[in-house]
Amino acid sequence: MKRVVLYDTTLRDGMQAEGISFSVRDKLGIAEKLDDLGIHYIEGGNPGSNPKDVAFFREARSLKFKRARLTVFGSTRRRGMTAGKDPGLAGLLKAGTPVVTLFGKSWLLHVREVLGVSRAENLRMIESSVRYIRKRGREVVYDAEHFFDGYRDNPSYCLDTLRCAVRGGADCVVLCDTNGGTLPHEVERVVGEVAAEMRGCGASLGIHCHNDSGVAVANTLLGVSCGLTHVQGTMNGYGERCANADLTSVIPNLKLKMGVNCISDARLAKLTEVSRYISEVANVVPDDRQPYVGVSAFAHKGGMHVDAVRKNPRTFEHVPPPAVGNRRRVLVSEVSGRSNVIYKAAQYGIDLSKDRPETRKILALMKGLEHQGYQFEAADGSFKLLMRKALGKYRKFFDLEGFRVSVEKREDDRLISEATIKVRVKGTQEHTASEGDGPVNALDNALRKALEEFYPTLAEMHLTDFKVRVLDAKQGTAAKVRVLIESRDHEETWGTVGLSENIMEASWQALVDSVEYKLLKDSGRARSGRILQDHGKQAVKRKAKRR
Amino acid sequence: MKRVVLYDTTLRDGMQAEGISFSVRDKLGIAEKLDDLGIHYIEGGNPGSNPKDVAFFREARSLKFKRARLTVFGSTRRRGMTAGKDPGLAGLLKAGTPVVTLFGKSWLLHVREVLGVSRAENLRMIESSVRYIRKRGREVVYDAEHFFDGYRDNPSYCLDTLRCAVRGGADCVVLCDTNGGTLPHEVERVVGEVAAEMRGCGASLGIHCHNDSGVAVANTLLGVSCGLTHVQGTMNGYGERCANADLTSVIPNLKLKMGVNCISDARLAKLTEVSRYISEVANVVPDDRQPYVGVSAFAHKGGMHVDAVRKNPRTFEHVPPPAVGNRRRVLVSEVSGRSNVIYKAAQYGIDLSKDRPETRKILALMKGLEHQGYQFEAADGSFKLLMRKALGKYRKFFDLEGFRVSVEKREDDRLISEATIKVRVKGTQEHTASEGDGPVNALDNALRKALEEFYPTLAEMHLTDFKVRVLDAKQGTAAKVRVLIESRDHEETWGTVGLSENIMEASWQALVDSVEYKLLKDSGRARSGRILQDHGKQAVKRKAKRR
Repeated sequence: MKRVVLYDTTLRDGMQAEGISFSVRDKLGIAEKLDDLGIHYIEGGNPGSNPKDVAFFREARSLKFKRARLTVFGSTRRRGMTAGKDPGLAGLLKAGTPVVTLFGKSWLLHVREVLGVSRAENLRMIESSVRYIRKRGREVVYDAEHFFDGYRDNPSYCLDTLRCAVRGGADCVVLCDTNGGTLPHEVERVVGEVAAEMRGCGASLGIHCHNDSGVAVANTLLGVSCGLTHVQGTMNGYGERCANADLTSVIPNLKLKMGVNCISDARLAKLTEVSRYISEVANVVPDDRQPYVGVSAFAHKGGMHVDAVRKNPRTFEHVPPPAVGNRRRVLVSEVSGRSNVIYKAAQYGIDLSKDRPETRKILALMKGLEHQGYQFEAADGSFKLLMRKALGKYRKFFDLEGFRVSVEKREDDRLISEATIKVRVKGTQEHTASEGDGPVNALDNALRKALEEFYPTLAEMHLTDFKVRVLDAKQGTAAKVRVLIESRDHEETWGTVGLSENIMEASWQALVDSVEYKLLKDSGRARSGRILQDHGKQAVKRKAKRR
Repeated sequence: MKRVVLYDTTLRDGMQAEGISFSVRDKLGIAEKLDDLGIHYIEGGNPGSNPKDVAFFREARSLKFKRARLTVFGSTRRRGMTAGKDPGLAGLLKAGTPVVTLFGKSWLLHVREVLGVSRAENLRMIESSVRYIRKRGREVVYDAEHFFDGYRDNPSYCLDTLRCAVRGGADCVVLCDTNGGTLPHEVERVVGEVAAEMRGCGASLGIHCHNDSGVAVANTLLGVSCGLTHVQGTMNGYGERCANADLTSVIPNLKLKMGVNCISDARLAKLTEVSRYISEVANVVPDDRQPYVGVSAFAHKGGMHVDAVRKNPRTFEHVPPPAVGNRRRVLVSEVSGRSNVIYKAAQYGIDLSKDRPETRKILALMKGLEHQGYQFEAADGSFKLLMRKALGKYRKFFDLEGFRVSVEKREDDRLISEATIKVRVKGTQEHTASEGDGPVNALDNALRKALEEFYPTLAEMHLTDFKVRVLDAKQGTAAKVRVLIESRDHEETWGTVGLSENIMEASWQALVDSVEYKLLKDSGRARSGRILQDHGKQAVKRKAKRR
């Protein structure tokens, strides 16, 4: 089986992304996760560009990796200087890593206009820098910057730069598409030619792609199918401009589809978790539609699709979601059919066969509501409540007698948002008032104030997201408003929805669903255990019947 | 030069994306934009799955496309039925489009387990359905669903399905990677074999890719480099699960790098604008790092990169950003920003040279506001007011002394939205009150009531759109809210923006800008004519100087 090593540069190239900045602690945490995942090389940073990275390498000495090798990144020596006197190379050695990655210029445009050195001096800079580091006992990876652009321009000079790196003792030379402008058919041609030229040179060959043409993952895979054995990329593709090759796509493609055993099955099953951990640390909203690891990667919306997936998952899933630690999701929406409802109900421990009248009732109810403008895809909490209502398993926790929300702007520009609310809970009328940062926040505060005395677990939950969409917006402010609220407690996250011409009413509906979901969950903990058991028994009965 | 036709399915496959739902009006607006962009085929929807799509095709009759052909999408006939009696096919004809796209099954797994028909009946279903539609004078595109999975399983059966479609009279047959699981090297092999088998068949061949392996764009391009002449995709890649092939990457790759003249240079330069328009309508936050059209696509962060780009943009830009209507951004730098302000001011007939202090002032003001979360791209009205304020050309039409907005929900579920407002206009205090469909509508009504007596032209304008976006949404309801309002009178449309933690305050800001823009426009009609004339004279003077 073919062997390919994985080289991650999230901590260096990923930091070049707009809006991403990791602290030293962030970097240490990510490095450990990458090691857990089975990444072979972890590039930690560029101490020459960044004092934070100097601190990282100092702290990183205490990391105990299971298998990964840490690498430091920097440029070849400056022009007209011996390698031994170059402060950049000294800084790289000082990082104390077993591996050093040196980048040098392949494209004559850069040699001429950016570095301003002769062709020959650039070649000397590469060879002497690699040799200097190699002789000090470090493994050397040589990144040939702008290789594909350079090759388009002058292939023989580009090959010379690689030969210099190999002569200097590089363990691996990496063809970089630094500007991300190279298309797949060109990558195949160039890699094929370079691999033939470099055959038997003693160094391994790798690839490093950027995504400016939207083909970084494909180019990386084509590099491997043309014989390269080292791939560079970043987790979630974080990187400058349009991102780097996304390792969360590259790895499962290699492993599940190209027969490259780059990480174990058990480690592959951690992929989704590691991807989300890193987006959490980077404080970047995860991309729902990210291949393999995105929330929507195995989400089925169309009724026909759901029906087919129930018959055989292979019909609409290219790989089994658990292989990468992800899961199938069935969305309920205006395009869904009964299969979607049944599948969803089963997740909540409710058994609905296709022919039960309740199934039709829920479906009809949901479709009617979606037609009005409700949307249950991101509102599983509201959908669960809707099912319970349809099944007669819903109970009220409180009754609203009225609320009033006001926003006042005074002459001094001060804003006051206030809500008053009157509810009846367990026979008692509660009348509370609260201020807030805005009208919805004031309403949320007033509702909690009224209920927490009776339901103390409400203190565990809080709103984590609030979205507003104006529907049929071409009617101005009288259009319908849909509000989606996401809430969370210590164990789960749920979404709820509200819809009205009035934004306060829509927010109120979503707020109430959110609170009811929490109360239902907590009050029914023992009971739902029973429901699940019953459900299990029913399943056993059905099985017994079939025999 | 090679010819390739572009087929867009944003309105159908794009609607399958999680979280996307277009209204009929949204769809009509997008169709017109796609036509403007030079897309050859626009797939409007699937009337069999969705009553909304039936309405779309009814309304679409009034669209006057410059070059695009509208197409309707649906399945081949049901089993054991003649095509003439199939209600699905009748629905497709009823849509009244010049083109009909029929999808059928290529993969025996689906034939067997999902359709539950014999191999032979599936072939008959394809051929008879295509023939039936073709005989009724429509152009027919045949989408071979799951073609690549089917081909892996049984190539000769897959080829038979294509031959049946061609025999039935299909104008184009499209190889679909419905599950998105096929890798580039496999696409090349399969397309090469199929193209050889089908050579001279009389139909053109196309490709339709999904992105579940992260390689949809690459697969599409490889299809073209292997000889296919029809490509399907969606704008911004919107589509089920992990998206479709993103046409905003496919088109510039074809045009700028593969020598395929699929759209004109002038149309390509609209790409970024069309992409953002569609994400706005879809209410999906644009992906900053999207290739070619993303905000970060040509953003340079590293100091070395910026320096190199200033020496020669080719050093770190794979194509010139204006070719796709995008622009270079230098992060944390003033230079790019000033050019932007100058460009924008020129649009309003205001001349700002780089060195005028007003330019710096506007830039600093705008940057400060954008940093807070304001956005002027869709709020040209607010931006014009901001420029006038900076230039000392702004005057107040009224002073706010205070407002109060309240929403009350009574026990009988009745909702009352009321606003009271106190303003001073031309020395007179006006104190009015009004109800509305919601709090913003009530506020709008109260403001007009106070002002219309003094400024009767306000009766000519009305709000046509109202959008709310929650920024930094992970802080719950206390997050900042950005409101965009679109207003219109008999001669133009303008956008205004407001931002606050409080949705009522943000709405108020946008409302006031909207009203002020109208008043400024009307009061300054004669004067602004003069300004433009003066400005024209200045320009003439400068020209004279240069000579």
